[in-house]
Amino acid sequence: MTSTQERPGVASAHDIAQMNRDYTMFSWSVQGASTPMVMTGGKGSHFYDGAGQSWLDFSSQLINLNVGHQHPRMLEAIKKQVDQLCFAGPSFATEPRGLLGKKLAEVTGLAKAFFTLGGSEANENAIKMARLVTGRDKIITRYRSYHGATMGSMSASGDPRRWPVEPGVPGVVRVFDPYCYRCPFGKTPDSCGRECVSHIEEVIQMEGPESIAAILVEGITGSNGLIVPPDDYYPKLRALCDKYGILLITDEVMSGFGRTGKWVATQHWGIKPDIITCAKGLTSGYMPLGAVIVNGRVADYFETHMLWGGLTYSGHPVSCAAGVENLAIYEEEDIFARVDDLGAHLAARLEAMKAKYACVGDVRYKGLFSVLELVKDKATKEPLAPFNGTSPEMNALAGHIKSKQVYAYSRFNFLWVCPPLVITKEELDAGLDVYEEGLAKVDALLGAGVAAD
Amino acid sequence: MTSTQERPGVASAHDIAQMNRDYTMFSWSVQGASTPMVMTGGKGSHFYDGAGQSWLDFSSQLINLNVGHQHPRMLEAIKKQVDQLCFAGPSFATEPRGLLGKKLAEVTGLAKAFFTLGGSEANENAIKMARLVTGRDKIITRYRSYHGATMGSMSASGDPRRWPVEPGVPGVVRVFDPYCYRCPFGKTPDSCGRECVSHIEEVIQMEGPESIAAILVEGITGSNGLIVPPDDYYPKLRALCDKYGILLITDEVMSGFGRTGKWVATQHWGIKPDIITCAKGLTSGYMPLGAVIVNGRVADYFETHMLWGGLTYSGHPVSCAAGVENLAIYEEEDIFARVDDLGAHLAARLEAMKAKYACVGDVRYKGLFSVLELVKDKATKEPLAPFNGTSPEMNALAGHIKSKQVYAYSRFNFLWVCPPLVITKEELDAGLDVYEEGLAKVDALLGAGVAAD
Ligand SMILES: Cc1ncc(COP(=O)(O)O)c(C=O)c1O
Ligand SMILES: Cc1ncc(COP(=O)(O)O)c(C=O)c1O
Repeated sequence: MTSTQERPGVASAHDIAQMNRDYTMFSWSVQGASTPMVMTGGKGSHFYDGAGQSWLDFSSQLINLNVGHQHPRMLEAIKKQVDQLCFAGPSFATEPRGLLGKKLAEVTGLAKAFFTLGGSEANENAIKMARLVTGRDKIITRYRSYHGATMGSMSASGDPRRWPVEPGVPGVVRVFDPYCYRCPFGKTPDSCGRECVSHIEEVIQMEGPESIAAILVEGITGSNGLIVPPDDYYPKLRALCDKYGILLITDEVMSGFGRTGKWVATQHWGIKPDIITCAKGLTSGYMPLGAVIVNGRVADYFETHMLWGGLTYSGHPVSCAAGVENLAIYEEEDIFARVDDLGAHLAARLEAMKAKYACVGDVRYKGLFSVLELVKDKATKEPLAPFNGTSPEMNALAGHIKSKQVYAYSRFNFLWVCPPLVITKEELDAGLDVYEEGLAKVDALLGAGVAAD
Repeated sequence: MTSTQERPGVASAHDIAQMNRDYTMFSWSVQGASTPMVMTGGKGSHFYDGAGQSWLDFSSQLINLNVGHQHPRMLEAIKKQVDQLCFAGPSFATEPRGLLGKKLAEVTGLAKAFFTLGGSEANENAIKMARLVTGRDKIITRYRSYHGATMGSMSASGDPRRWPVEPGVPGVVRVFDPYCYRCPFGKTPDSCGRECVSHIEEVIQMEGPESIAAILVEGITGSNGLIVPPDDYYPKLRALCDKYGILLITDEVMSGFGRTGKWVATQHWGIKPDIITCAKGLTSGYMPLGAVIVNGRVADYFETHMLWGGLTYSGHPVSCAAGVENLAIYEEEDIFARVDDLGAHLAARLEAMKAKYACVGDVRYKGLFSVLELVKDKATKEPLAPFNGTSPEMNALAGHIKSKQVYAYSRFNFLWVCPPLVITKEELDAGLDVYEEGLAKVDALLGAGVAAD
């Protein structure tokens, strides 16, 4: 997977790394412990580092670069908009903003979009809207969830990243996840009564149905373990919301826009949320953009009531133009059909890994959105690294993958496979082969009873 | 100020307006009451509407478009970066990110930058950092302030836009502003003992000095009345912070990057904050970008401690490239000297308006950051519109300015003059002439005792 690329910039790779280290700060990091890799360019499923080496991107950066690196159509569309109109304030109507709003209504079946810059701000605004529309205050969210880092979205998250910044915004009530592999209700497929939904009704009763504005869930939970719900989960959740007049908000920031082979993940289960939040795959990250897409009920409310939210860059013309082009690429390059095909192949290979390697406890997938959940022991399901922690074995696995220039996302005892949707079958297989080498190493470590260094 | 421009887009202006209205939602608006203007392009101090008419932009959109519409150098720099590397995840080092971090340290005299997308997220992260670094919880902010719409930044704001979304994040304590025209302490220049600072010390005592992480203030208050502090305000505030180990955070989102003729407003008064937040003028809005710029104390802390914050688009290469170019333009086009010159002319004209028109109660300015505060009666200072409200007179004034195709920002009883920093003297005078016509109309309305319709 090595190839050499000319680096087109001005500063040397060494200087770039040093300037970044000396003068900029990195997300979710102890700065002294971070050794940032230099990126100079990319193409499709690959990007190039400061030494001119090519890396296979198996996590689409932060699971956002759906159409791959430096897609020529994206670059052209952005440059065209830059030349025409690079900025207009949020109170102006512009062509890309209108076109994107219309297209989003079409692909989601909802009514209107409010544009933000990222996923956090999308969720902030969705929560605000739900509270204003319903006149209720509480928001039900799930423990294994990440909705963003701003205080409203962080408070709504279950992710342990919220711990150091609590107390957050009041009014969040957390429920359990449809996490069948480790059912919080101690159930198995045989004994399951969909307690993952029914316990939410119990919580609604205890919290007061009239106080609950919305249930906010990720379409498919992403960075907290890629949890694919059972097929009747969403229909039941939708019914529960309808019963109590609660809005259903699905956060499709990670699971949306082709990642699972649909525009949004809930389309697999035939239900419509009241509000969808999105970002990432909406532009594949080429330009920062998020959106809150709302149904008629919510849109109607704000026809006659003030929308108490805004940001300087809402509806940024270049971001919207990037969105318009990205959505056209999904359709015109038939990307979702490709995700279905490659997804079936990926599923088969993941299941084979689960059968073959002692350390693979579970595999979960939908399209090109997938994870391996790793364990020390298949019978006891003891995680290969503890919740919110790491382990020598996980480090050895991640280290092996990195040594082969495959860029992968791992966290706790999870290892994701989320390549750009334009990846070829050969590239996908090559990356999965590297994963298998790593899994074999972990099995050897576990079998030998010797901890990795 | 009328000229005709070819509209280069695809949809008709009518269709663009309709699509925006039908499928997108507008910030801080009752949707049914908003009739968005179509923007199709611009150049320097002017932009073009859907009818091909040219507008003089007297508020730089949302006081962010410092280098004016469609600056050729900005467009080139953005397109170049798009071709080279359009996206890299936040954990990567890239050339524009490194260059911008270095430049921001140089121009502010601080140490490191953490990149966000807008001003709200910058303040969210500044607050988080201050709490983590000090181990303290409370944040002191001012009543007349706006720090953004996400829950952390909205809670930190004093602006009435927070009311409908309260309760917000706990721990915010609000103090009064250095608002000499309407001194909250009932003082005049003669009797003033700088109670606007001394009362903050009283609050610190009452809240517990050991519980206060930071004092967060706008460099110069923008959308809540453009309040320029007395010359010894910042030195005294800096001393107060030092006395109690409290971090001083200045929000330069609106007042930074040449708006007042300096990189950041506090440079007028020779002090350095511990943390500066910025956005808007950092890229002039060409690309979404915000930053938290921190001093050595804060940077050192995060060398060995986790930075509990992040976002997918932190350090976006194209946004950073736009920032690098924008900062170069400020220097190479000698923009700040221009702001000094034009600012002196603007100040003279504003003072003349105050002398001439009965409805001008006060004028406040620093560089090209200025406001007229309008009153019904100069002696009683009764505002021309109530706090958080509007009035027929203010509507008549705004209506007149709009009818002359001057795009202006007004709110409550305030009317801003904040044109792009590249405006010519002739353009500035032309816009101010229109303002004067409007003020004469208001005076006539007031004098006649007849309310405008
Ligand atoms: C499901 C989900 N929601 C929200 C966010 C936050 O988005 P952003 O980082 O753009 O603020 C993320 C980011 O990873 C996400 O995965
Ligand atoms: C002083 C100040 N801080 C913060 C913000 C919020 O910035 P943004 O709209 O980019 O989130 C603004 C926006 O007007 C502002 O004027």
